[in-house]
Amino acid sequence: MANSASGDSMVHRLVRIIAAFDEEHPTLSPAELARRTGLPSSTAYRIVDELLAESLLDRDGQRLRLGTRLWELVSRGSKVLGLREAALPFMEDVQAVVGHHTTLGVIDQQDVLYIERLGSDTSTVNITRVAGRLPIHATSTGLVLTAFGSAEAQETFLRRRLPKLTDTTVTDPEELRRMLADIRHSGFCVMPGTIVPESTGVAVPVFSADGTAIAGLSVVIPREGGPVQASITALQTAARGISRALGWDGTLRDAIRRSL
Amino acid sequence: MANSASGDSMVHRLVRIIAAFDEEHPTLSPAELARRTGLPSSTAYRIVDELLAESLLDRDGQRLRLGTRLWELVSRGSKVLGLREAALPFMEDVQAVVGHHTTLGVIDQQDVLYIERLGSDTSTVNITRVAGRLPIHATSTGLVLTAFGSAEAQETFLRRRLPKLTDTTVTDPEELRRMLADIRHSGFCVMPGTIVPESTGVAVPVFSADGTAIAGLSVVIPREGGPVQASITALQTAARGISRALGWDGTLRDAIRRSL
Repeated sequence: MANSASGDSMVHRLVRIIAAFDEEHPTLSPAELARRTGLPSSTAYRIVDELLAESLLDRDGQRLRLGTRLWELVSRGSKVLGLREAALPFMEDVQAVVGHHTTLGVIDQQDVLYIERLGSDTSTVNITRVAGRLPIHATSTGLVLTAFGSAEAQETFLRRRLPKLTDTTVTDPEELRRMLADIRHSGFCVMPGTIVPESTGVAVPVFSADGTAIAGLSVVIPREGGPVQASITALQTAARGISRALGWDGTLRDAIRRSL
Repeated sequence: MANSASGDSMVHRLVRIIAAFDEEHPTLSPAELARRTGLPSSTAYRIVDELLAESLLDRDGQRLRLGTRLWELVSRGSKVLGLREAALPFMEDVQAVVGHHTTLGVIDQQDVLYIERLGSDTSTVNITRVAGRLPIHATSTGLVLTAFGSAEAQETFLRRRLPKLTDTTVTDPEELRRMLADIRHSGFCVMPGTIVPESTGVAVPVFSADGTAIAGLSVVIPREGGPVQASITALQTAARGISRALGWDGTLRDAIRRSL
């Protein structure tokens, strides 16, 4: 496949074009798109024409937006969709019982990526959003997935330099190592105020049929007076339901036993 | 951008690779992928390497799957995500009150594309699925969106040759034209048995803040004894809530007035 003079692959140029659209920029004019991608206008316009021909971009008056066809193509084959479809009814149960924001997240590269979120207007501050990312060390979902992940991923995580987001964000590797051991022992993670001071995250792991921790199920509750114990109980109950919906046969595998 | 000897654009070859993955084929070996796309192996493998480098494909052992990063890139900038996030709480309300499958669909190209679905295990047969398509003329969502769409789109639709899916699927243009007029008058569409004989679809339009019918909100109920009137009432109530969540200020614009 032809690479540009700068050595960029065609796929990389396409990624730059798709990534230029986001929640703050759902539509772009062709000139804005060229500017945001840093591609030469002629290159950007040529790729845009090909993307329009395949309905991967749609016209919105004089502006461009990601095509619904692109969402469809990606959603059909994506493991994200199967996971969130399995989880959604159980997330509704948690939200109904606990009454606060409920999220489902996975680890992707070096972040937590939230793939579903049920909000509550009357609850506390929650900055997660669907397809949004947060740092692993500052979120209950990130720590619970790391604690039940591979030893190798844990060591890689503990070697990284981690930013402090609030007064209570833990960044010391030895303290994090102790926290991970506690989470493996208890089966849940409670993180008060590590992203925003007024909220506490509570998370448990969700296991696939083969016992791999594939997602973190979490609620975000008020730090003062939030229902921590009820949240843990509701999350653990729902997480077993999601595993069963994913094909788990109900027998306790090692990883699941450790988390209960 | 370099085109292949066959004249295929690079973007078209990428689409063939992404489209090769679907619900039945969530993972493919490189050889299977080359076979399903019909691309020469050397071409397919070269594109796969570039997609792996950008995390648009992930390795799953010896097999390949669509990358979570691809879902993330597309979801962030997609109008589908904003629409389904606004609609989801109201869809839960409909499901709780009516007790049957609830779906949200849009028209894309010449089909209804379902972007969300809340299922019910105890209800009737419903073949919709998220990111799945059904024909416009056989679905309540398709007809309701056509009825409240542009006159031009209606004429294009009525000129198409339409397949008969069941005994009750209407394909005659003049009968369809009368049905569209009825839907504009009543504000809803009830379709008994046009996709599967034992189920009835009921749909209402969802309007954006500027009064455009952007989605159809629908329930699928049993054809015998299903709660048609309660479904219409619940759907109309929820559709107003979704419009408000999308920024509608509550004043009745023409299109919305016609639908109430």
